[in-house]
Amino acid sequence: MTTENQKSPGQPAGHVLTSKLPFVLVHGGWQGAWAYERVIPQLAGLGHTAVARDLPAHGLNARFPVSYLARPFDSSAFATEESPVAATTLEDYVASVIQTIEEVRSHGHDKVVLVGHSMGGLAITGVAERVPQHIAHLVYVAAFMPKSGASLFDYHAAPENSGERIGPLAKADPAIVGALRMDYRSDDPACRANGRMALCSDMSEEDYLSMSSMMTPDAPLAPLITPLVTTQEGWGSVRRHYVKCLQDEAIRPALQQRFIEEADAFVPARLTTVHEMDASHLPLLSQPGALAELLSRIAAS
Amino acid sequence: MTTENQKSPGQPAGHVLTSKLPFVLVHGGWQGAWAYERVIPQLAGLGHTAVARDLPAHGLNARFPVSYLARPFDSSAFATEESPVAATTLEDYVASVIQTIEEVRSHGHDKVVLVGHSMGGLAITGVAERVPQHIAHLVYVAAFMPKSGASLFDYHAAPENSGERIGPLAKADPAIVGALRMDYRSDDPACRANGRMALCSDMSEEDYLSMSSMMTPDAPLAPLITPLVTTQEGWGSVRRHYVKCLQDEAIRPALQQRFIEEADAFVPARLTTVHEMDASHLPLLSQPGALAELLSRIAAS
Repeated sequence: MTTENQKSPGQPAGHVLTSKLPFVLVHGGWQGAWAYERVIPQLAGLGHTAVARDLPAHGLNARFPVSYLARPFDSSAFATEESPVAATTLEDYVASVIQTIEEVRSHGHDKVVLVGHSMGGLAITGVAERVPQHIAHLVYVAAFMPKSGASLFDYHAAPENSGERIGPLAKADPAIVGALRMDYRSDDPACRANGRMALCSDMSEEDYLSMSSMMTPDAPLAPLITPLVTTQEGWGSVRRHYVKCLQDEAIRPALQQRFIEEADAFVPARLTTVHEMDASHLPLLSQPGALAELLSRIAAS
Repeated sequence: MTTENQKSPGQPAGHVLTSKLPFVLVHGGWQGAWAYERVIPQLAGLGHTAVARDLPAHGLNARFPVSYLARPFDSSAFATEESPVAATTLEDYVASVIQTIEEVRSHGHDKVVLVGHSMGGLAITGVAERVPQHIAHLVYVAAFMPKSGASLFDYHAAPENSGERIGPLAKADPAIVGALRMDYRSDDPACRANGRMALCSDMSEEDYLSMSSMMTPDAPLAPLITPLVTTQEGWGSVRRHYVKCLQDEAIRPALQQRFIEEADAFVPARLTTVHEMDASHLPLLSQPGALAELLSRIAAS
């Protein structure tokens, strides 16, 4: 803790000097800024400002197929209705995160620590290629980190991802509806059990239900199939960290390792700093204190 | 902005001196910490640390009646099933908020600005009675501020609250299920329209749907019927602010005014500082920038 109390008799209480880097936190698919609600107070306790914002088409920006909200639920309509967020692009995500970085920088900070979870790895990769000079550390938490020219979908079905449990949750053909569409409110016991194992085997079923109840159905397809082009001079110039989640059943540890190896082959002069957590895909919610401590150590490194 | 850049050549970027009071933000019924997700970044931009946590039985701490998650939805089962959060008390809320205040104080702050929205007004009232010495300002945003010895339910049906739209949303007898139970996922157009008018007439229908989709069904009954006892020496010793929301159809402006008048009659030596916003019940989400600026001005006052 370098936070120190600066009170003096003539001043109101609460004067604090902080010399810590601020965080910009990017959530994954079907989630929102709320995914970091347990991490942000922990980071504050370690002296860090941290900002999470809903990506386009996510959280409070989510939009729903009519069939998702209708009762009774009609699974065949849900399987074919065009997504209201089908027009959202990877560039939309990147622009949104760059705007947040600019807002945080306008508060007097020169650089931020940029963190991406899961699908959020796509956004932070694009951002780091665009504005590497504003990023002190780039941190992938159980996140997609495609090599230059590849998209998320190029990895999802890779042999290294064998055993992943996200694919079986899809309820529609993405090419038809324009989104990777899930039904996290399904009352089918097998579907629920699979969802919990996919996302947070280290949380109780009750916690899974409250968490999944906040998830939204449609992750726009375009960002998942858009190739990301990175360069050694752009993305490759940023200090890069990967937080491997060893119990992850959404992005399997072998795939996380492949991301690291491909990145290091691309930028051998700047290897990925690898961290490990004995956690599911969602240490943000299941182990927020440990994750915040790790992130703070990364910021200080 | 008193935030200033403290960079020097030998230091990493991002050194910031802030002399601003931190905020502890308490959400209302059926919502969670996420209700402040647009306010917190705005407060950060004004130099304030701000922490929002889910109250017990809310947000990620919510628990659901089985009938709420079952398909097809059975409204008669939903109307009679005992709430899984029926045992939650007002003391649970108060203890939770005091714990958050202690965590924020452990970061080096002496006092906090404590904000309560809607039902969150109950919790901050109880907290201010218990630990007035740790609260620089107490801020009610369209919140319940009962006089000593009264409960929320003593006001809900008051003449000053005529025209409120929350009551008609209830889907069960609270005395039977142990909660004020709502069905914010109803696909009935009249119910949706009423919900939007009750909570956020200044947001679009699409925004209302994404917001209400995150709300949970059960607000535990006990906190709503427990009389709050306050004293002039405890709660009455804290600088008190009320943010009146002039378009509020959940807690009508006339009832907000009654809270203020009763408080001022109880503590005439320390009158409520009254602020007004031309906003619905949810300026947290509909007008986050304006609310954050107001809160920052209150902190500096």
